This record gives sequence, structure tokens and C-alpha cells, in this order.
Amino acid sequence: MTTEHNNSADPLHAKKEAWSGRFSEPVAEFVLRYTQSVSFDKRMAMADIDGSLAHAAMLASCKVISEQDLDDIRRGMEQIRNEIKAGKFIWQLELEDVHLNVEARLTQLIGDAGKRLHTGRSRNDQVATDIRLYLRSEVDEIIAMLGHLQEVLVAQAEKEYATVMPGFTHMQVAQPVTFGHHMLAYVEMFDRDRERMADLRRRVNRLPLGAAALAGTTYPIDREMTARLLGFEGVMQNSLDAVSDRDFGIEFTAAASLVMVHISRLSEELVYWMSQRFSFIKLPDRFTTGSSIMPQKKNPDVPETARGKAARVTGDLITMVTLMKGLPLAYNKDLQEDKEPVFDAIDTVKDTLRAFIEMMAGVEPNREELRKAALAGFPTATDLADYLTRKGVPFRTSHDIVGRVVRLASERGCDIAELPLEELQGFSDKISEDVYGVLTLEGSLAARNHVGGTAPEQVLHQVSRWKKIFSERNPAAQA
Amino acid sequence: MTTEHNNSADPLHAKKEAWSGRFSEPVAEFVLRYTQSVSFDKRMAMADIDGSLAHAAMLASCKVISEQDLDDIRRGMEQIRNEIKAGKFIWQLELEDVHLNVEARLTQLIGDAGKRLHTGRSRNDQVATDIRLYLRSEVDEIIAMLGHLQEVLVAQAEKEYATVMPGFTHMQVAQPVTFGHHMLAYVEMFDRDRERMADLRRRVNRLPLGAAALAGTTYPIDREMTARLLGFEGVMQNSLDAVSDRDFGIEFTAAASLVMVHISRLSEELVYWMSQRFSFIKLPDRFTTGSSIMPQKKNPDVPETARGKAARVTGDLITMVTLMKGLPLAYNKDLQEDKEPVFDAIDTVKDTLRAFIEMMAGVEPNREELRKAALAGFPTATDLADYLTRKGVPFRTSHDIVGRVVRLASERGCDIAELPLEELQGFSDKISEDVYGVLTLEGSLAARNHVGGTAPEQVLHQVSRWKKIFSERNPAAQA
Amino acid sequence: MTTEHNNSADPLHAKKEAWSGRFSEPVAEFVLRYTQSVSFDKRMAMADIDGSLAHAAMLASCKVISEQDLDDIRRGMEQIRNEIKAGKFIWQLELEDVHLNVEARLTQLIGDAGKRLHTGRSRNDQVATDIRLYLRSEVDEIIAMLGHLQEVLVAQAEKEYATVMPGFTHMQVAQPVTFGHHMLAYVEMFDRDRERMADLRRRVNRLPLGAAALAGTTYPIDREMTARLLGFEGVMQNSLDAVSDRDFGIEFTAAASLVMVHISRLSEELVYWMSQRFSFIKLPDRFTTGSSIMPQKKNPDVPETARGKAARVTGDLITMVTLMKGLPLAYNKDLQEDKEPVFDAIDTVKDTLRAFIEMMAGVEPNREELRKAALAGFPTATDLADYLTRKGVPFRTSHDIVGRVVRLASERGCDIAELPLEELQGFSDKISEDVYGVLTLEGSLAARNHVGGTAPEQVLHQVSRWKKIFSERNPAAQA
Amino acid sequence: MTTEHNNSADPLHAKKEAWSGRFSEPVAEFVLRYTQSVSFDKRMAMADIDGSLAHAAMLASCKVISEQDLDDIRRGMEQIRNEIKAGKFIWQLELEDVHLNVEARLTQLIGDAGKRLHTGRSRNDQVATDIRLYLRSEVDEIIAMLGHLQEVLVAQAEKEYATVMPGFTHMQVAQPVTFGHHMLAYVEMFDRDRERMADLRRRVNRLPLGAAALAGTTYPIDREMTARLLGFEGVMQNSLDAVSDRDFGIEFTAAASLVMVHISRLSEELVYWMSQRFSFIKLPDRFTTGSSIMPQKKNPDVPETARGKAARVTGDLITMVTLMKGLPLAYNKDLQEDKEPVFDAIDTVKDTLRAFIEMMAGVEPNREELRKAALAGFPTATDLADYLTRKGVPFRTSHDIVGRVVRLASERGCDIAELPLEELQGFSDKISEDVYGVLTLEGSLAARNHVGGTAPEQVLHQVSRWKKIFSERNPAAQA
Repeated sequence: MTTEHNNSADPLHAKKEAWSGRFSEPVAEFVLRYTQSVSFDKRMAMADIDGSLAHAAMLASCKVISEQDLDDIRRGMEQIRNEIKAGKFIWQLELEDVHLNVEARLTQLIGDAGKRLHTGRSRNDQVATDIRLYLRSEVDEIIAMLGHLQEVLVAQAEKEYATVMPGFTHMQVAQPVTFGHHMLAYVEMFDRDRERMADLRRRVNRLPLGAAALAGTTYPIDREMTARLLGFEGVMQNSLDAVSDRDFGIEFTAAASLVMVHISRLSEELVYWMSQRFSFIKLPDRFTTGSSIMPQKKNPDVPETARGKAARVTGDLITMVTLMKGLPLAYNKDLQEDKEPVFDAIDTVKDTLRAFIEMMAGVEPNREELRKAALAGFPTATDLADYLTRKGVPFRTSHDIVGRVVRLASERGCDIAELPLEELQGFSDKISEDVYGVLTLEGSLAARNHVGGTAPEQVLHQVSRWKKIFSERNPAAQA
Repeated sequence: MTTEHNNSADPLHAKKEAWSGRFSEPVAEFVLRYTQSVSFDKRMAMADIDGSLAHAAMLASCKVISEQDLDDIRRGMEQIRNEIKAGKFIWQLELEDVHLNVEARLTQLIGDAGKRLHTGRSRNDQVATDIRLYLRSEVDEIIAMLGHLQEVLVAQAEKEYATVMPGFTHMQVAQPVTFGHHMLAYVEMFDRDRERMADLRRRVNRLPLGAAALAGTTYPIDREMTARLLGFEGVMQNSLDAVSDRDFGIEFTAAASLVMVHISRLSEELVYWMSQRFSFIKLPDRFTTGSSIMPQKKNPDVPETARGKAARVTGDLITMVTLMKGLPLAYNKDLQEDKEPVFDAIDTVKDTLRAFIEMMAGVEPNREELRKAALAGFPTATDLADYLTRKGVPFRTSHDIVGRVVRLASERGCDIAELPLEELQGFSDKISEDVYGVLTLEGSLAARNHVGGTAPEQVLHQVSRWKKIFSERNPAAQA
Repeated sequence: MTTEHNNSADPLHAKKEAWSGRFSEPVAEFVLRYTQSVSFDKRMAMADIDGSLAHAAMLASCKVISEQDLDDIRRGMEQIRNEIKAGKFIWQLELEDVHLNVEARLTQLIGDAGKRLHTGRSRNDQVATDIRLYLRSEVDEIIAMLGHLQEVLVAQAEKEYATVMPGFTHMQVAQPVTFGHHMLAYVEMFDRDRERMADLRRRVNRLPLGAAALAGTTYPIDREMTARLLGFEGVMQNSLDAVSDRDFGIEFTAAASLVMVHISRLSEELVYWMSQRFSFIKLPDRFTTGSSIMPQKKNPDVPETARGKAARVTGDLITMVTLMKGLPLAYNKDLQEDKEPVFDAIDTVKDTLRAFIEMMAGVEPNREELRKAALAGFPTATDLADYLTRKGVPFRTSHDIVGRVVRLASERGCDIAELPLEELQGFSDKISEDVYGVLTLEGSLAARNHVGGTAPEQVLHQVSRWKKIFSERNPAAQA
Repeated sequence: MTTEHNNSADPLHAKKEAWSGRFSEPVAEFVLRYTQSVSFDKRMAMADIDGSLAHAAMLASCKVISEQDLDDIRRGMEQIRNEIKAGKFIWQLELEDVHLNVEARLTQLIGDAGKRLHTGRSRNDQVATDIRLYLRSEVDEIIAMLGHLQEVLVAQAEKEYATVMPGFTHMQVAQPVTFGHHMLAYVEMFDRDRERMADLRRRVNRLPLGAAALAGTTYPIDREMTARLLGFEGVMQNSLDAVSDRDFGIEFTAAASLVMVHISRLSEELVYWMSQRFSFIKLPDRFTTGSSIMPQKKNPDVPETARGKAARVTGDLITMVTLMKGLPLAYNKDLQEDKEPVFDAIDTVKDTLRAFIEMMAGVEPNREELRKAALAGFPTATDLADYLTRKGVPFRTSHDIVGRVVRLASERGCDIAELPLEELQGFSDKISEDVYGVLTLEGSLAARNHVGGTAPEQVLHQVSRWKKIFSERNPAAQA
């Protein structure tokens, strides 16, 4: 036994041929495909062109390139933009990404000026700029769509402001609420989503360009000018951070996950409300589908699909967090994997919002069934307890008394409101004729008449508040 | 074969005894333990008392309870607060949660007034209020700690503003940067973390109380007053939403995950910088530990532990998202599972920030090794390319020329700066004597002198900017 | 501007005091607390002792330690074991982990022999051994509990083998099934869980001890002997892998997540089945709780809690995956963070299985409501299509015909079975009197009489199959 | 204020037009696109055809369809198969999924027999069958590729069985190991991956077909025959479970995540080993790429990309778990979202394995640098402690002595082996001349000569063991 290296018959070399032979795609092509991004980052082409034009204008203003170069670059980019829009641009995998594809075509079109465009920048800051520009515009669309969905839900709330339905906790009938009130709960959720999107937009909207590879550039550049031209709110203050930061991707997928969590909660309700035992609503046919085997089926495919898609955005979020954990500074190739989860989250949220904007406008509550459902399960038991408490019984004692009343009604198979007065008075002498007023569904609803309460009057008040907010958001649209 | 039900020998009943016999804990106790929360939610006791006192003050102001009741409640709560602080409060599992424990003790102490406290509220809005109060205060602490960590890093940056080190991309030496510049990259990250915490604090800081079980209450309550007393910025506008919303928990764990992602990136760097091959830094002994078997070891336990703990906060985040996905309105018991992940994220982030505040102050860069490392790998190759471009060569062409220069130096086993002028001129006649100025580490650093660049002058400029920000944040501390 | 280092006034030093002053816990104690594991790994104490005893026996057998040493170690460990069982062992945070705590006490009790115990091993292989021993035993308990739950469900299936209920797809009534059949679906799921646990147990059950720190040891050890003594199925074949591998933790939390996914699906159904609109089942009172405000409530707290706890095990899984991603070999301190997620998953799965073993035995289906529900939504439409197909109509054509029949019945507000024969014949002349046999719920059920079908006969067949499996698993228990 | 419904001006109706106007895609087309799966499930076309052919053969054998029908179906399917292979099949979005696309074309080609194919099945069991067939075949490929990667790594181990390198714990030099031993650690990991894939394959390989929509079918089918024809190991025993089960998707993505975790650990090491400070290895140029700005760069793009892609498979896993959590039985549309994560995990794992099969064969360790690195950090300190222990000093005492020796050597700036004998003897009189034998790297390596140890002899032993395993796996390939 010797510790000398035995190289005489290199086992790696001997085998390599065999292994490679098992794959039909040549190694070089395969590696290119494995590490390329153009197949998915080409959707940022317009952002890439915008960024390059601003960079070029800045370089010209700083005398790093000539005015002639700038003119050439503008002309070339105009043509490229048109080629892309017309679907005539030829994307080449061997040029790796959108940036090199665009630059190569530019140089083909305008020569040396094209080669000068990359002065004072690197792909590292370029891609960070592109994704921010692209995401900013998508965030704006998502904010607008969330607003549209809110409008649809507020319109439902206005129409159904007094439609009584059972309010559930633990899926047990708890207290009556109105369908309008229920719709408005989602309007609140989507408003927080809007807030979060607006908050993160500020952090997306900062310029990394000028960080170059990681350390800044030796050219006399004017980053504030580039930021101004591109509508960025500020310039990133550290070049290492500028090329390494994907916080905004994590933050966006987290906010997108929350949008989808809200959608999934609404979807869950729609699916159950459609079920025959609930029969709370009808969905327009175009949002349901049939079965390949059961001729009678009308399945709520759209809410189910949306509920399922909530899971994928959660996956996008966890991809982003796991991707970034433990990565040293500055740029690492791993960062290329940030795009697909972010794009997938964008597409999923936008499609889903559109589906809900259309669908929620068509939801038709079945008022009779909702009312019937609200009557099961002693929904006004709390009202009776409150009634007793208002008459001086400590709340915890009232709660106990009503528990016994409910047991009696349950044995009788009737609602509390159907028990005769003398029997009720057997539980407490504080009870008098006026008790029946608080035991009706309408009495119960109307009594919850404070900010945030379910009283129809409050629901209409909220509808007005929202309409005012909508008109302030978008004055022109309401004119 | 018959379809009649065969009940004669109930197999479930027959077996039940046997199964139960296998467990030592009686069913009732087990179910209590399984569904209780007091073992972990008692940490919200002070928030619970604060919330109850504000609720009582509002009820008294609205004449729902008497001034005498309010006085009794205040007195009782004062005693409970002291008992808890003194560790003398007896927490009872059979009272399920912090709320019932406190209320039961209150009633024990003050009688009927205690039973009146729960008027016009429910545990559903009470727990939502408590967790918001508790989280708000922890978020404030986290914001303060992030600020402290920034100060430590800025102090390091000031001390090492000119310490040259290799800047890496893909863990390959890319261009020289300064250690101070590197520290400042993390200051930027932690500043975004502060922003995110401040943003979500606004959404935490809204009052759910008054939503009662889910529909509001029949008592004439004044939610704005309660909000004012508790320092909330606003009142939640929909009762169903108020008791169902755990967005803030998701948002907080997402922001906490981002803090930990940044910590994990820094940890990764510290761990490698401590490795013998890097030898970039020394960590104070108290942040390292030895080995049970290898007497020579000095392991960077604190950064490794922190990097590991980043994973658990990611787990907390995913727990929260998965918990909420598809939950119908309004309150469901599942929501009780929101607390442990949120608490775990709070504890982990706070402990980790403290560790880094202490540790980062003690990091000692090894300037000689950093400089030596910066010289490997042709770090000024880009500078040469920029030099050529400034002399009129299109950047892409310069890039190609320098690629060939690097190959030559590589074959020679020397740095570019060590190649004689005539050899360099063989690659391009634009090269003259002044080229050696741009090929030194100091020349390279100094040349990146724009906002965000690594030039020592820029680093000092950033240090000043941050110091100004710190003094604005906390004027007293600087006085 | 100079690039010299400015050390005159060390800003870090100046500030350090101030920062530390903000924390009440001294640094050293804090770091100890931050990096310790004894607070959670002490639950592995018995496994640690077992592992040490086997290691000592092997060392003695290999003459590395003396028989006297072995006797001393055995005696000391016996005492420690008793101290721990009696709750009298004093765990010390400053001894970091369970291993050093036990070893320190051993040396205190028996002197030098205790110091010799750690010969030929390291904490790295020791902790890997302990966690495997511990997890193996917990996996065995989980397998047994899954088996108990299966038995409970099979007993329900036997009792309700012919109880008709609506089978849902998309939560729309699809075709009638039996309650027993539905229960058996979960028996299948939990059987796959058992399989997965058994599969991963094989990978848990391999001995890392002997890997020492990472490279093996210089002592003449006999790893096969240690493995045999501890009941391991094999010896890990690579020392670097042995101390770095936490695959089993990931695999366990993944399998645990699947158990909880199944539990969550069943929980979801129980929660809805308990809802007044469904009223499909009753749960024993001891698995439900009331409301602090609504006296009539009976909330399905146990299934809701279980559904919520499914989320935390998902969090445990993602913690484990994220923890291990990108970690270089061999042992890193990050690995210490593997324990809490694994322990949490163990506890959660075991508690939840116990809850379901008890609770599922007490589920009482409401046969009348189930039957009523099965009649809504044209559940036998497929049977009519199959009827036509059997008479020669291509299935797709039958499907279309029945679609029109359903539309008519829907307009009439009656079931298909209530349409008169001549009307049915108007849709197809293949229909004759015998059609009504296939349109009843019982006819529909009985017709699905093949392996896996819902026919009561098949359900009973499956019940027998399972009982046979149970008795083979555990012959003694059935005797 | 009235509670009557105000329908006079329907706000939903009024707004709907406006909202729809904002989208260019008509609602119906959009909903189709949103809920379709053909764009991604068409890759299962061959599995779909295989499943249909087996189903048809079984139907014919059971006399449900005629032999003529079967012949027609076979002929039609043959043509469809060819059309798909030739890229001439026209996939129609409006036919939703792969199943309806194939069936529609079949009916177009062969008429009524095509319509009869769907007898006794549903899309619910059909899709479950297809995805299992598809996944089974991909799992087989992954198992084979894991085997190839193992072979490459074993070949490296054979070549470098004696190449000394530093073994790290906590990234601190711990003890010398061999490069071959390090490679074999990964062979162990990938072997567990193979085991897991084989284990889950058994659960994938069960036939759901015959479950029809959810309850089984009224036709006299022979599921065992179908299973046999398709190579399934068994028939799923419960129809509800058969159409609801996606455990295998979760289990596969979990196992795939583990493969990627291993890849990410190896990638992390490759990236650092390539870094100039380490300089442990060279990667073939074709697995690295350059920089757009830095002409000297040679970036390890392939390992970085792979490390990043580990994150996406984690995302796929979490998508699957979150998707299934809380879903009631039986089929829900959410299940359609199972395909993309499973497909993505398949593609990512296969591409990444191919990359590593090719790349790892080309890794060239830099033996000089590895040796140099192994000498730093007192790698033989443990050997000295073991030496003392073998001479009778209790291990814990030896550990303390060596700690002091290391401190001296550290102060002297030399290795332990460079301290003179008398100085060493000053620490313990047990030390004699033979100590220097254990303090060399080779002595240290050779001494760890037990199963799993790093001694070159053991590495060669493992190489032989693996080669035997490989030849048993695949006798033909080795002949």
C-alpha cells in the first residue's frame, strides 16, 4: 500500500466519454442553456432599453461619450424597440441574457457607439436597474388592479348592505352580519395590500446604476441625473449593496403572498358558499366548468384555481428567501435565479386579480338561503346576554344565564325568540316584553351601530367612505 | 349482504378503553393542554392589562360601567400587574389563556366589577388587541437595535475607511474596495430593515377592539377613545376583518426574515474571513468557542449560530403564511397558532441583533492579509480597460485587449502592474507611462470617487451622512 | 484627504461601553445563552447515556480503556440516569449542551474514568448519534400511533359501512359514497405515512459514532460492535458525511408535514361537517369549547388547532431545508439549529395523533342529514349516463343527453329519479323502466362494486383486509 | 334610513363594462387561459396515451367495449403519438388539458370508438394515472443520473485517494483528510438520495385508474389488469383517496430538495475552492464564464447557478405542501397546480445532475495548495492529544495539555511538529521521540484507519466497495 498518486490509468478520463455519450445535447450547448437567462429575462427588454438610453444621455452630458454617439444609440435603440414590439427581434441563447442580446444588436446596427454604451456600467448594476424598472411598473399595475377589485367589492357591499347572513366563528353560526359587511372585510384587506405595495415601491424605486461591477466606476458619472431621467426617487448610496441587494424581490413576493392569502380566504368562502349545503351564492357560468363524467356538475373552477395559485406564490417567496440566505457580497450568479419567482408572482397576482375583478362583480347572493342560515344556531344569544347586562347583570353572569336558555331552546328544537316570555323570565326577572326586539336578526344587526360594526347604517357609511377614497385616488375616472 | 347498519357490537366503543389506556394523561387534561395557549401567551400579560384598562376607562366614559367599577378594575389590575412582575401570579392551564387567567384573578379580587370588564368585547378582539400592543413595542425595540448595529458598523467604516481589501463577485477577486465600504453596504441593508419595520408598525398600530366576537357590539362604545388611550393610530373599520386579520404577523415575520437574511450574509462572510486561508479578520475570543476534541480550535460560533437561526425565522414566516392560506372569516382557532412563530421571530431577531452589536464592534480586520488578497487576481484589470476607453477605444474593444494582457500576466505569474511598458504598449499604442498610476490598488480605489463609489473620500462622506442621520434620530443621545 | 488610517480616536472603543450599557445581561452570559443548546437538547439525555455506555463497552472490548474504567462509567451513568429521572440532575447552562453536562457530572462522580470516556469520539459524532437514537424511538412511537388511528378509523368504517353521504368534488355534490368509504380514504393516507416513517427509519438507524470530529480517530475502534450494541442497522461509511449529515432531519420533518397535511384535510372536513349548514356529524363535547361572549357556541377547537398546527410543521420543514442549503462540510455550528424543528415536529405530530385517536372514535355521523345532503345536486346523473352507455350509447353522447335531463329536472326543482318515464324516454329511447333502479342512492352505491369502489360490500371487504393487516402487525394485542 | 334592498341602480352592472374595458383579452378567453393546463400538462401526452391504451385493452377484455373499438383506438392513438412526436399535433387551449386534446383528436380520427374510450373513467383518475406514469419514468432517470454522478465522484476519489487537504469544521482547519475521502462523502449523500427516490417510486407506482370521478364506476372493470399492463405494483384501494392523493408530489419534491441541498453544499465548496485565497481546484473553462466589465474574471457560474436553483426546488416543495394543506376530499381544482412545481423540480434536478456529472469529472485539485492549506492551523493537535491518551493520560487532560502546546506554537509562529522535543516534554513527560511520527500530515491520515476513516487505505477500500456496487447495479455496462 502506497500513498503515491496513481495516475497511470486516469479513471475520470476513461469514463468521461461514456457519460457524455449518454446525453444527446453537447456539453457546451447544455452549459449555455443551464446558465442562460434570456429565455425568461427578455420580458425586461423595454426596461433595458429605457435604462440604456438614460445611461447614454448621462454619459453624453458628462462628456464620456459624444453627442453623436448618443444620437446613434437613440436611433439604434428605437429600431430595436420596434423590432421587439413587432416580434421580429432574434433572441440568441448564446448571448446569455437580454442585456447582451440588445447590446449585440445595437453594435450591429450602429457600430462603435454601441460598444461605448457599456462604458461606466456593468451587467451587475444594469440588471439590477432593469428589474427595478420592470417591477416598479408591474407594482403600479397591481396597485391599480387592487383598487379595481376594491371598487367591485364596495359595489357589492352597497347592493347587499342589508342582506342578512350568518357570521361564523370556528365555522359555527355566531351572530348575524350583512353580506355587504362581509364584502367590506375584504376591501380592508386589499387596502392593506395596496399600502404594502406602495411602501415597497419606494424601496424598489432607487437607482443602482453607477455601481458598475461592485465598486463604482472610474468615469465621471452623474448618478442623480440618471435617476432623474428614469424617475427613480433616489440613488443607492453603496455600490456593493447596489449590486447585491434583492431585498425588493423578497419584499415583493412577500406582499404578493399576502394578496394571494386574501384571495385564498375569499376563494375558500366562495367554494363553500357554492356547495349545495350552503347555497349562499351563484357564480356566473363563465367562472365555473363542468365535469368530464358527471353531467350535472358546475364547479367553481376559478376560485379553486386561485386558492391553489396562492400556494405557488408562497413557493416563490420561499425561493427568494432561501436563495439569498447566506450569500456573501457582492454579485453572485445565484442572483439570476431571482427573476423567475418574481415574474411568476407578478403574473399570478395580476391574472388572479383580473379574475376576481370580473367574477366578484357577478356574484349573486341567495338572500333567502342566507337568511335561513342566519336563523340556525341561536345567532342572537349574545344579544340576549347584552340585554341582561344592560339591565345590570354582570356580563359573565348573563353569559351563564343565556347558556341555559340556549340549552332549553335546543331541547325544544326552536330559536330563543320562539320561547314564551314567562319561560324566559324563569331564567331572569330582568327580562321583559322588549326582549323580543333584540332577538330578531334585524334587531341584532341594527344594534351593532358603531364604527366597524355590522349595522346596515354602518355598512352604508363605509360604502360612502370608500367611494370618497376612490374618487380621491382617481379624480378623472369619476368625472 | 345487507345495507342495514350493524350496531350490535360497536367496535369503536369496545376499543376506546384500550386506546385510552395506552396514554397516561387523561383525555380532558390532554385536550386542555393541546388547545391552551397560556403557556406561551402569558408574555402578553402587560399588554392584556393595558388593553383592559383602556377598555374599562372607555366603558366608564360611555356609562356602560360605573366609575366605581372602573376604580375597582384599576385597583385589581394594579395588584395583578405587581403579582406578575413579582413572579407570584399563579397561571392556570385550565383557564386556557392569558386573558381568562387575568380576568379570573380580577374577579377573585374585586367581584362583580371584574365580571363587567368583558362587556362589549370578546376574546377575539381582545387577543387581536393584545398581540398588536405587544408586537408594537417589540418592533420599536428592534428598530432601536437595528440603529445601534448601524452605529457600530459606521464606526468600523470610519476606522477602516481606507483599508483596502478585495471586492469579490462570484467569490472571484474583482476590484479593490475598502473594508469601510464593505461595512457600509450592511448599514444600507439594515436601514431598509428599519424602514420596513416602521412601515409595518403603522399597520400593527390599529385598534381591533370593539369588533367583539366578529360583528361589533350592542353597547354604545367609543372606539376612538380606546384607540387614543392605547396610542393606536386608528380604528379598524370592519369588525370581521378586525378579528380575522393576521396580516401584521405575516408582514412582521417577512421583515424579520429579511433582517436575518442580511445577518446571514454578514455571518457567511465572517465565517470565511476567519478561516485560515482567508485570515481577513479576528473575532474577540468571547464570540468563539473551542472543540471537545481538537485543542487548537477557535470556532466562530456566534456568526454560525446566527446564520443557522436565519433558517428558523424563515420557518416562522412560512408557518404564518401557510396558517392563514384558505382560512374563511372570521375568527378560527387556527389563529392561536400565530403567536409562537411571531414570538420566536421576535426573540431570535433581538438576540441576534444584540450579538452582532457586541461582536461587530470587536471585529479586527487584518490589514496586511486584506491587502495581500487584494493583489491576487488582477483586480485592476477593469481600470486598465477604463484607461483605454478614456483614450478613445470603445469599451468592448478595451475589454478584449485587457483580456489578452491578463492572459500574458497570468502566464508570467505576475500582476499587470508588473509588466514592462513596452510589453503593455504591444497591446495598444494608447498606453503610456501614466498607466501605472491606474494600476495600483490605491489608484483604483481613489478613482471610484462618485456617490456610492468605494473611494476612501466617498466612504468618509457616507460616514458623515450616517452620523448626521443618527444624531437626527436620537438628538439627546448625542448631546 | 489622506488614506492613512486614523486610529487616534477609536470610535468603536469609545462607543462600546455605551452600547453594552443598554443591555442588562453581561456579554459573556448572553453569548453563552445564545449559543447553548442544553435548554432544548437535554431531552436527549437517555440517548446520550445509552450511546456513551455502548461507546465505553466498545472501548473496553478494544482495550482502549480498562474494564475497571468501564465498570466505573456504568456505575456513574446509572446514578446520572436516576438523577435525571428523579428530576434532581442540575443542568448547567455554562456547560453548553447535554453531552458536556452529563460528562462533567460523570467525572465528578467517578474521576479519571469519566475523562477517558471521550476517547476516540467528538461531540460532532456524539450528537449525531444521540439525535438518531432519540429520533428512532420517536419514529417508532409515531408509527404505532398512526396504527392506532388507523384502527379507530377502520372501526368507524365498519360501523358506517353503508351510511350514505354525498361524495364531493370541487365541494359540489358528485356521487353518493358511504361514510365508511370516506373514513377508509384516510386509513390509506395514514398507511402511506407509516411507510414513509418506516423508510426513513432505515436511514436514521445508521451509526455515525467513530467519525470523531470529522476524519475518524487514531484509536483502534470497532464501530460494528457499537452499532450492534445500539441496535443500528449499519455503520456510516464516511466520517465527513457522518458528522455533516442532517438528511434524516429534513426527511423526518417532510414525512411529519405529510402526516399533518392529512390531519389538516380531515380537520377541514370535520370543521365543515360540524357547521350548522352541513350538520353531518357530532363531536364529543370534550373536543369542543365554548365562547367567552356567545353562550350558544360549541366550537370544534381540536380539529381547528390541528389544522393550524399543520402550518408549524411545514415551518419546521422549511427551517431544516433552509438551514442545510449551501453548508460546506463538515460540522458547522448551524447544525445545532436542527434540533428544535425536529423536536417540535415530533411533539406536534404525537400530540395531534393522540387527539385524533381519541376524537375520531367519538365522531357520530348524523345519518339523516348525510342522506338528505346526498340527494341534492343530482348525484346519480353519472349512473344515468353509465346506464345509457351500457345500452350502446357512446359515453360522450350519454354525457350530453344526461346534461339535458339534469337541466329539465333542475327547472322542475326535482331529482332525476322523480321525472316520469315518458319524459326520460323523450331524451333517449334506450331508457326503460329499469332506469329507476340505477337512479336511487343505494343503487348507485351498490353498483360501484370493484376494488376501491364505494359499494358497501367493498367497504366491508376493505375493513376485513385492514383488520387482517392489524392483527399481523401486532399479533399479541389481538389475542 | 331603510333596510330594504336598493336595486334601482345596480352599481355592479353599471361599472362592469368599464372594468372589462380596461382589459384587452375577452373574459371568456381569459378564464380559459387562467384555468387551463394544456400549456404545461401536454408533456404528459405519451403517458396519457399509454394509460388510455391500457384502459381500452382492459375495457375490451371486460367486454365493455368491442374488439373493433379497441383496434380503432389503437390505430388512432398510434397516429396521435406520431403527430405529437413530429410536432404536428395541434394543441388547443379551449380543450383545457392534454386529456381532452388527445380524446378530441381521437374522436375526430376514429369516431364513436373514441367517444367510448372515456367509459368507466374520469379525468380525475386519468390525470392521477398520467402524472404517476410520467413521474415514475422521470424518477428512474434521476436514479440513473445520481448513479452516474456517484461514478464520477468515485473516480475522482480513486485518483485523489491520497491527496491531503485540510478537513474543516466551522470552516476552521480541524484535521487533515484526503480529497478522495471528501469526494466520497458526497457519494454517500447521493446514495441516500437514490434510496429515497426508490422508496417513493413504490408509492408513485400504484394505479388510481378505476376510481373514476371519486367513487368508482358502475362498469365491470378489472383494475388489476390495467395495473399489470402499465407496470404498476398495485391498485389503489380507495377511490376517494385515489383521486385526492398528491402525497407522491410532496414526497418527490422533498426528495428533490434533498438532492439539491447536497448539490448546493458541493457547489458552495466548489465556489470557495475556486476563490483565489483558497485556490484548491481548477474547473474546466466550459463551466465558467467571464465578466462584461472585468476582463480577468473566470466565474464558477455552473456551481453558483446550481446553488441558486436549490432554492427554487425548495419553493416547489413548499408550493406542494401549502397547496394540499386543508383541502377536503375528493378532487379539487387546486390539484391542477401540482404539476408545475413537480415538473420544475424534475427539470431542475435533471439538468443540475447532468451539469455535475460533466463538471465533477473535470475538477482538478491543486495538490500543492491543498497540502499547504492542510499545514496551517495545527491540524495534528488532536493526534498529539490521542498520543498522550494512548500513553495513559485521560483524554480531557491530554486535551488541556495540547491546548497549551498550541498556544506556544502559535506564539512562535510555527507548527507543533516544529517545536523541539525538550520543549514538548516540558508539557508532559509521556512525550518521546516517536511523537513526531504522529504529528505529520501523512501520519495523521494513516492513523485513521477504520471503517469510514480518512486513511488512504480506507479510501481505496471504499472505492472498491462502490465499484462493486456499481457493477451489481448495472452488470451489462461494466462487461
